Order: sequence, then C-alpha cells, then structure tokens
Amino acid sequence: MDRPQRQGILERQSRHGGGARPRSSRHWVPAQAGDPVAEIDTPALLLDLDVFEGNLQRLAASLASTGVRLRPHAKTHKCAEIARRQVAAGAIGMCCQKLGEAEAMLEGGITDVLITNEIVGPVKLRRLARLAWAHAPAVVGVCVDSVDGALQLAAACRAEQSQVDAYVEVDVGQNRCGVSDPEEVVAIARALHEAPSVRYRGLHAYAGMAQHRRGVPERRSSAANAALRAAQAREAVIESGLPCDIVTGGGTGTFVYEARSGVYNEVQPGSYVFMDADYARNEQDGSAPRFESALFLLSTVMSVQGERAVLDAGLKAFSTDLGPPHPTFAGWQVRSVSDEHTVLLRTDSESTLRLGDKALLIPGHCDPTVNLHDWIVAARGGVVEAVWPIEARGRMY
Amino acid sequence: MDRPQRQGILERQSRHGGGARPRSSRHWVPAQAGDPVAEIDTPALLLDLDVFEGNLQRLAASLASTGVRLRPHAKTHKCAEIARRQVAAGAIGMCCQKLGEAEAMLEGGITDVLITNEIVGPVKLRRLARLAWAHAPAVVGVCVDSVDGALQLAAACRAEQSQVDAYVEVDVGQNRCGVSDPEEVVAIARALHEAPSVRYRGLHAYAGMAQHRRGVPERRSSAANAALRAAQAREAVIESGLPCDIVTGGGTGTFVYEARSGVYNEVQPGSYVFMDADYARNEQDGSAPRFESALFLLSTVMSVQGERAVLDAGLKAFSTDLGPPHPTFAGWQVRSVSDEHTVLLRTDSESTLRLGDKALLIPGHCDPTVNLHDWIVAARGGVVEAVWPIEARGRMY
Repeated sequence: MDRPQRQGILERQSRHGGGARPRSSRHWVPAQAGDPVAEIDTPALLLDLDVFEGNLQRLAASLASTGVRLRPHAKTHKCAEIARRQVAAGAIGMCCQKLGEAEAMLEGGITDVLITNEIVGPVKLRRLARLAWAHAPAVVGVCVDSVDGALQLAAACRAEQSQVDAYVEVDVGQNRCGVSDPEEVVAIARALHEAPSVRYRGLHAYAGMAQHRRGVPERRSSAANAALRAAQAREAVIESGLPCDIVTGGGTGTFVYEARSGVYNEVQPGSYVFMDADYARNEQDGSAPRFESALFLLSTVMSVQGERAVLDAGLKAFSTDLGPPHPTFAGWQVRSVSDEHTVLLRTDSESTLRLGDKALLIPGHCDPTVNLHDWIVAARGGVVEAVWPIEARGRMY
Repeated sequence: MDRPQRQGILERQSRHGGGARPRSSRHWVPAQAGDPVAEIDTPALLLDLDVFEGNLQRLAASLASTGVRLRPHAKTHKCAEIARRQVAAGAIGMCCQKLGEAEAMLEGGITDVLITNEIVGPVKLRRLARLAWAHAPAVVGVCVDSVDGALQLAAACRAEQSQVDAYVEVDVGQNRCGVSDPEEVVAIARALHEAPSVRYRGLHAYAGMAQHRRGVPERRSSAANAALRAAQAREAVIESGLPCDIVTGGGTGTFVYEARSGVYNEVQPGSYVFMDADYARNEQDGSAPRFESALFLLSTVMSVQGERAVLDAGLKAFSTDLGPPHPTFAGWQVRSVSDEHTVLLRTDSESTLRLGDKALLIPGHCDPTVNLHDWIVAARGGVVEAVWPIEARGRMY
C-alpha cells in the first residue's frame, strides 16, 4: 500500500531528469512518496491521513457497542486502498453503486460487496452473474425493485450457474428507486426467495432525503420516518412467512439514528471518510461522532491581477453541484468557477497570493469531485506518504 | 479512425461469449462499430455523425471568405479524432486549455497547438519546453499575462534548448486571467519579443463573458466592446515598435463578430461541434451559422415507479453546472439529478417508459460532461460507425 508507485518513479524520471524525450502524460502522477506537500503538481486531490484515520476510528467507536454491521459506501472514494483500510477498521464489506465499482472493489481484494442499486438489462445482468461466479467465494449483492427485475436477475444467474445476494429496495421517502407498498415488497421478496440462483437476504432502505436536512430535529425526524417505513416493510415480509435477515441503509448524515432504530442491522455511510463543504453545513448532533474534512483540492495560483487571483482548477477538477469549494485560508473568497479556472477575490488587503502559490480548497461535494481524478495523494505532516489510484474513477457503467 | 477498436473486440468477446472469466472493466467500451445504437451499453456519449459533420461544414463555410484562420478549441471534446476532422475541414491547428491536453493533441498528430492559458511553475514550464522540443517542427504556443511569467517561460525554454510561440493574454472584459492596461500588454510583449527562446506572436483576447449573453444585441455589443479593447492593445503594441501578427479569440457565441471585426485574424470556437442545452438558449443571429445538437447522453431506464422513471446516469455522467440535461423525447421532465441517477416525472399520461428502455438526453454543458467519459460513440442512421477514445479526459494538469 505504501510501496512506491511504479508510474510515479517513471514520471519523476521524466520530470526531473533522465531520458531526453518527455514521457506521455498518460503516466502523469501528481507526486510520489517522500515529496513535500508543497511540491505536489496541481490540480490534485490531497488526503490528510491523520484526519482520515481519525474519521475511520470515530465511526468504528460509535458503532462498537451497537451490534450493527458497517458496510461503508465506496461511491465516495472509488479507491480500493481506502476500502481495504475501512475493512481493517471493522467494516464487513463495501457498498457500491455501479457494477464497474463492484468490479474494482473485488479486484482490489474486498470479499463482500453490495451494489445498492438496480442492475438492468441482459448485458449487465450477465456481467453481474459472471462477476459473482469469478470472485466466489466473495459475496456479491444487488438490489431489486420489481418482480420483473427479480425474474431477470434469477434467469441471468441461472444461465451463468452463478449465485448473487439480493435485497428488495424499499422506498422510505426518497422517491427515487424502490417500492413503497409493503405488498409489493413482499411480492419481490417472494420472487427472489423462490429463485435457487439468488440468495434473498432482506431489505435495502436508504433515506437519501434525510442526509442533508440541516437541523438535527428535522434530520432525526426524517430518519425516524424512514425507519418506520422500513419496519412496516420488514413486518409485512415476516408476516408473509419469508425471512428478513438484513435491513441495510443509512448515510453519514443519519447512520446513528438507523443504528439505534432497532430496524436496521447494517449501515452504509460513505462521506464520513472525507467530509465536504456540504456535509459541514449539517448541524452537529452531540450524540453522533464529529467527522472532519480530510480531503482537499490542491491548486496553484496561475494569475494575479489586482484584487483577484486565479487558480488552475475549475469544473473539471471539482463538482459544483452543491456549491463551489471553500478556501482553507482567510482573506479570499470564490468569485466564480469556470471549466479550468477558479477566480478568487481578495476580501482582506493584508492577504497576499503570489504567482505559483499553492491554494488548498475544501470541495463542495466529494463524491463527484473524486470521480474527476485518477489519484489521491495521501500525506501526513507535510510529506506525501503514498499516491493511491482511484480504480473506479469513471466506472459509471 | 474507423478501424475496429481493439478493446471493443476484446470486450465484446467477454460480454457475449468467449472465455469463462469476465475481463476487467478496465477494458469496457460501450459499443463497437456495427452495433445498432439500441444495443450501446449505458451511460454513454453518443455523437450523431450527420449533425457533427454538418456543424463542421457550416463553420468552414461561414469563415471561407473572411481570410480569418480557424483554430477550434479542443477543451470541448478532448478527442484527437475530432481534432483531426476539424483540421481536415480547414482548421489551421487546435487550441487547448491545459498542457496535458496539448500533449494528447500532439500525440494525436495535430501539428499546431496553442494553449490559451498561462502555464505556471518550473515543473510545468519544463514539461512545456520539452514538449515543444520533442514534437518540433510542430508548433506549440502558450499565453502569458505577466512580465514575470514571460521571463520564467523564456528561462525554461532556454534551459531545454527549446522554443515556443507566445501570446500576451489581454483581458477584454472577462476579468479572469490577462492584463487590461495597454502599457502592461506592451511590457509583456517586449519581454517575450526580446527572449530568443520564445517566438512572440501577438495577442490572445477571448471574450468569455460575451458567449452566453442570450439576446443578439447584447451579445454583439459585448463582443464589439471586447474587440475595441483588443484593438487598443494591438495599437499600443504596434506604436511601441513591436510586431503584432496575430490577434486570436472568439468562441461559438461570438466568433462571427470577431471574424468581421478587422481586429482578430484567428477565431477559437469549440462548442459548435457538439452544441449543448446552454448554447441552445442563445438567441440565433441570422447572420451566423446555425449549429445543432450533435452530442447526446444515452442512458437506460433502471426503475419505473408510478409516474416516475429513473435513469442510470447522474452527476458522474454529465455536469449540471449550467442546468440539468434535457430529454429528447416528449412527455417526461427531469425532476432531480443525484450522483448516479436522474429522476424523470411523467407530464403526459400517454407517454410510457419501460424498464430497460433507452433514453437520450442533451447535456446541459458539453465540456465538463465530455471530461467524465472515456469514449465517444459515433453513429449514423442508427448504427455505430466508430468508438473514439477521449484521450485528454481528466488531463487537468
């Protein structure tokens, strides 16, 4: 994990000496182990290892006495090294959102992966069935929200002589995928339970709408309402004579409520490893662990004109869907973001940025920001410890 | 160009038969030549070749009698095959925004590349100088907006025994990079002109703020104001005894005005090849060519619940910085977009979407959308003709 990155060594030779012809930028990495943080090439994602490890520990501690399983979401980081560290810190496996992410996690050594999403169509279902077969005895799970989907999943697994875990996705208020009518939940659960090529496990009930409710009472109430709906679905399943071993759900904003609900026995927080400017706007619940910003966007001042400084990172280096990134330094604010630039305006005449200075920003929304990058530079005390590939970057399929 | 894609053939074997173990998704491509469009795996970028070629021709025709050079911007597509087709349609070379993009274009056979942006710091300046050296006699140009930057560029080129073209970036109203004071323009031009390791060529004066002014009078007026400022800068340079061979600038929204201005002799439109929902909101100037949407996001219906249908593409498949994508079909509207999902609501009870149906969307903003993908699927008449790699995807450095 902390071993030298082969591409890093190659690139470093081309950047700082060695052969006369420059190597293709296909081999570009922003840094290598041992570099001072100040020498990282930009734009780059920078992970503060001390904060990151603190976040891992705080989550583990908060769940230690609950008996609730932790299955963090890999959609946040898409990085097998981070997933391995989450498992080392007590996670039973990982969540993924896409088949391509699950492939990256299984190839990275994760042995229990749940795709918290529907996989649709014969081509992708065959890929799913083959993936489970190829990585057995690793566990591969998926969500289903229609009887038709259950039958197609079962047929694909049968055709490939494979077996996957399956969960009924229950809509507990997000109004996206999933079924809300308990009778429909039971019908899908029965179709899954009766298919020998599928291991029916229980319910997936994620309260996406609750995660970013700012006030603690509103967030708690939204999560409680979701837990009530999950409980009703579980009850209907059990009354129908079917098992319901696992109820899984919960994100960084609400997992403490799911963990205490008596309904969920598995939680799925993802953003807690990094945090972002958006999650930082949530009012802190004193009973929940306090996670801190561990992921930053490192950029360089590429132009200084009067009261403005322009950074070398824009929409192609971070997502602005939940607002622009926040400077970590005082005296400057974001005026505008374009594809490759961020314009800062000086708000304090004492603050100076010079051409070539490095500027550290907190991304507005981590998940789609990470998806723009190929590498995470992990550092501690001003020195790079490792550069991790983001294996599932771009794996939207 | 239209030759079979090697990865496509490999992937097709793994998806539709062949060896028992599935190949890694690192080799995934959404389609291969000859596939019906309906069988493209999703999410995928789909290029309508007839419309795309029409856009290329309309631009060439509109500039044919002007004597103004066309240097389209590769930041839009990041794809060497598209750049080669733009050059075949009359472009004298390409613009890029980043060093990594320039590398991809030069490696793709483009022999005249201008980085319309500042390159800052010794590591990147050395990479720039070596790139120009390695690809000579191909021309590599860059922008400069400070005397300090000019001296650093000259020193890096001298150290590498290389030579690059250089332009002074003039701020003509965008208030981003560039200098607006004609005296400063002259000082930078002089520093560049006096450096033997640099070929000083003239001015880069891009009116970014004018491109998306919706009304024709406002857009025309904003471009005219920019041209006036560019003319003043050019005049100051010439009065100081320095040459000013090239004034380059202009985007899809305004290039007809720059081409007629008598100031600019090179224009840089990028988005015209694809267009997007945002550019479509500009009022059409009858004297300008009418470009049409050529680039689409192909997605699959992954869940249908009552009046809503959920697509398998979200923020990681398209950028929403200029609004959500637009459905190309009637009866449904976008309710919400999340990381991996788009929720559509039915607005017409006659319209039906079923599980597994394909849905075609027009991206809100093409440039950052293309940057999320590794492939462009080029099709005509319902059949895939080629799958082009987006070589500069993610090259933000």
